Amino acid sequence: MRTDDLILVSTDDHVIEPPDLFEGHLSAADLEAAPRILRKEDGSDVWAFEGAEVPNVALNAVAGRPPAEYGFEPTSFDDIRAGTWDVDARITDMNANGVLGSMCFPSMTGFCGQLFVRARDRELSLRLLRAYNDWHVDEWCGAHPGRFIPLGVSPAWDPEEMAREIRRLAAKGCHAVTFSENPEKLGWPSLHSDHWDPFFAACSDEGTVVAMHIGSSSALTITSVEAPVDVTISLTPLNSAMALGDLAWSRVLKEFPDLRIALSEGGIGWIPYFLDRLDYVYEHHHAWTHQDFGDQRPSDVVKERFIFCFIDDRVGLKLLDDLNVDNITWECDYPHSDSTWPTSPEQVTRTIANLDDDVIAKLTHENAMRHFRFDPFAIRPRERCTVAALRSEAGEVDLTTKSRPRADRATSSAALVASATSILSGTRED
Amino acid sequence: MRTDDLILVSTDDHVIEPPDLFEGHLSAADLEAAPRILRKEDGSDVWAFEGAEVPNVALNAVAGRPPAEYGFEPTSFDDIRAGTWDVDARITDMNANGVLGSMCFPSMTGFCGQLFVRARDRELSLRLLRAYNDWHVDEWCGAHPGRFIPLGVSPAWDPEEMAREIRRLAAKGCHAVTFSENPEKLGWPSLHSDHWDPFFAACSDEGTVVAMHIGSSSALTITSVEAPVDVTISLTPLNSAMALGDLAWSRVLKEFPDLRIALSEGGIGWIPYFLDRLDYVYEHHHAWTHQDFGDQRPSDVVKERFIFCFIDDRVGLKLLDDLNVDNITWECDYPHSDSTWPTSPEQVTRTIANLDDDVIAKLTHENAMRHFRFDPFAIRPRERCTVAALRSEAGEVDLTTKSRPRADRATSSAALVASATSILSGTRED
Repeated sequence: MRTDDLILVSTDDHVIEPPDLFEGHLSAADLEAAPRILRKEDGSDVWAFEGAEVPNVALNAVAGRPPAEYGFEPTSFDDIRAGTWDVDARITDMNANGVLGSMCFPSMTGFCGQLFVRARDRELSLRLLRAYNDWHVDEWCGAHPGRFIPLGVSPAWDPEEMAREIRRLAAKGCHAVTFSENPEKLGWPSLHSDHWDPFFAACSDEGTVVAMHIGSSSALTITSVEAPVDVTISLTPLNSAMALGDLAWSRVLKEFPDLRIALSEGGIGWIPYFLDRLDYVYEHHHAWTHQDFGDQRPSDVVKERFIFCFIDDRVGLKLLDDLNVDNITWECDYPHSDSTWPTSPEQVTRTIANLDDDVIAKLTHENAMRHFRFDPFAIRPRERCTVAALRSEAGEVDLTTKSRPRADRATSSAALVASATSILSGTRED
Repeated sequence: MRTDDLILVSTDDHVIEPPDLFEGHLSAADLEAAPRILRKEDGSDVWAFEGAEVPNVALNAVAGRPPAEYGFEPTSFDDIRAGTWDVDARITDMNANGVLGSMCFPSMTGFCGQLFVRARDRELSLRLLRAYNDWHVDEWCGAHPGRFIPLGVSPAWDPEEMAREIRRLAAKGCHAVTFSENPEKLGWPSLHSDHWDPFFAACSDEGTVVAMHIGSSSALTITSVEAPVDVTISLTPLNSAMALGDLAWSRVLKEFPDLRIALSEGGIGWIPYFLDRLDYVYEHHHAWTHQDFGDQRPSDVVKERFIFCFIDDRVGLKLLDDLNVDNITWECDYPHSDSTWPTSPEQVTRTIANLDDDVIAKLTHENAMRHFRFDPFAIRPRERCTVAALRSEAGEVDLTTKSRPRADRATSSAALVASATSILSGTRED
């Protein structure tokens, strides 16, 4: 298949929320209480809420900056590309990259809505969270129909309330929710308890995919406090491996046989080995651990129920026979530092060129469309959805990188993780 | 290649130390102070030393027991197969399994000699450790020349002393040492400090391979306290992934360009993906993290310097083109629960049958012989080293599993890890 003819739907991108996101979705009193952007003396912008400050971590928004200036110091809206927070500019950036559809994870809320957990008033928490979801579905996704897969955040402090929000979102056409790859790390009950059953039941009923993004436990792998930051960045797929190992043996998959889980940004090349490992452990140990998969193997269940996601994965695409080709989706990861933007079509082509056209179609858009009930072709004719068509719509886009002066940054894993996750624990500390 | 014609050298097995191991290697006074086997009221045997008790963890010695009775409660010498601790019986078990050579990791000392760290008198610690190594090299390996690859333990409390022991062992023909995949987890300086330089320099000079076994950080992955034990067992390869990620970016590989590291029991099927991941991170991030691999990529260095090990690895063997076929060795893992004993030849054949004979030779014995300077063919003619020849030497061996009554066991990951590793931290707690 020619690069120009690809149709690309990305199941993992990120939105940097604009300062006015809550406007129009809250009462005047709630708007007063809501998180707001605060410009600090050092020129950085942070979200301030009930005494906490959430920086716009720069490693999260580096699209358009030279790699020598990647880092994780707090930064300002002036320093980040408009496409990160302005939906019209985002569409232009998607078009320039030939990307038709995009599912955008939240930034300021944390992957699991942790920011809202901070509110002392749980009713306020819920109103803020719903306002956030309404902004995301109606404004961000609604601004350009057929271009975004909506992705909700749920009120993790109350599983019954989570279930209600899942149902409310499904009625609005949103069939994906971001949740933690390991809630226990956030101070919440583990995936092995029955605590989350109402939530999983609602997702199962509504056909809502639970997307667990790497880092959604607010825990990254730190091998040692002195380890260079490259160690932690390299090892991010381990978060997905742990989530896979955790869920494969959990009661969740057995209790909710229609539930599907996406391991966002987890990669795929490591998975065939781990599927064999699950089966090996089952065969060698089930007699004393009392695991029971009936007439299936653990790998069968995982292949049916998990959706795996890749950015650029030569090895995984070589091993498609050992995966379920109906449950793999491509992702762009705009505007994070691992993204292939703005040359995604060329990079995708490099690794999928040898596959059959029907397999390419599944991986690049059909699987994402089916799993997330996303139908862009209802909005725009298929021939206007290709890389070439979208790029011609984009016209002239300034893709040059922008340099900004900046302070030196720490380069230890511990510093990265402390900077990126300290605010986003799942419980209030003060 | 026919199963009968395979020549198998295993780079990862385990010895359960016999009660009399220190005899003949220590003065009467030191023998009095040395660890000794104590039979507990519940019938289990433990190593007692300076107030600590190290159980013979049963998951470590399950060869010959029915899987329904695997577990990790302390057990006794009466309960374990003689081949686990008696070297003549071990040779019989190796012959019955068609295995020519074996490198045996210690049990009672911990993978890094942690038990000896407990001694209040550092001089005593050193004498005990040397006595252990002398027993291992001269008695265990010496009893049957050409059948065991010696593997030393080093005095981790003093890197200069480690270097001396590495040189002393090398002079005795021992070119492998067991060390921690992550010393920081044991309360010691990390792999990123220069603390260990004398040790690594000695290993590099003497051509001694540093073997980092999964679990040698005394830290296994526990996703949550409620997680079933299957989760932790499935995720043990993550320990090797972390060690690989840690070392790939460390100064160790750069400072000691001849140093080789074996990731024992780490598996191989996940490695090609991680090699690509290292290169991807290097390409995307080196401009700000300042990593410098000169004209190489991280994957080039890892492929040269690491020895990877597999028990039964369909996926890894499919991906040999993405690995270094000269640095992969087979392992049996006798008598642990992941072992393929006593049908290793048949299980190996299943996954390597399609490979070329010269590749099979490298994976099954030649690589192990070269890296560990092990030359069994100097002792016995090659034609007497094959699976068929060794099995015919074994004669009639009772391979039936033996059942023993036992208490119910805990099946949470946390209980497994607490049981297996609590005693073996790297620092004295009392």
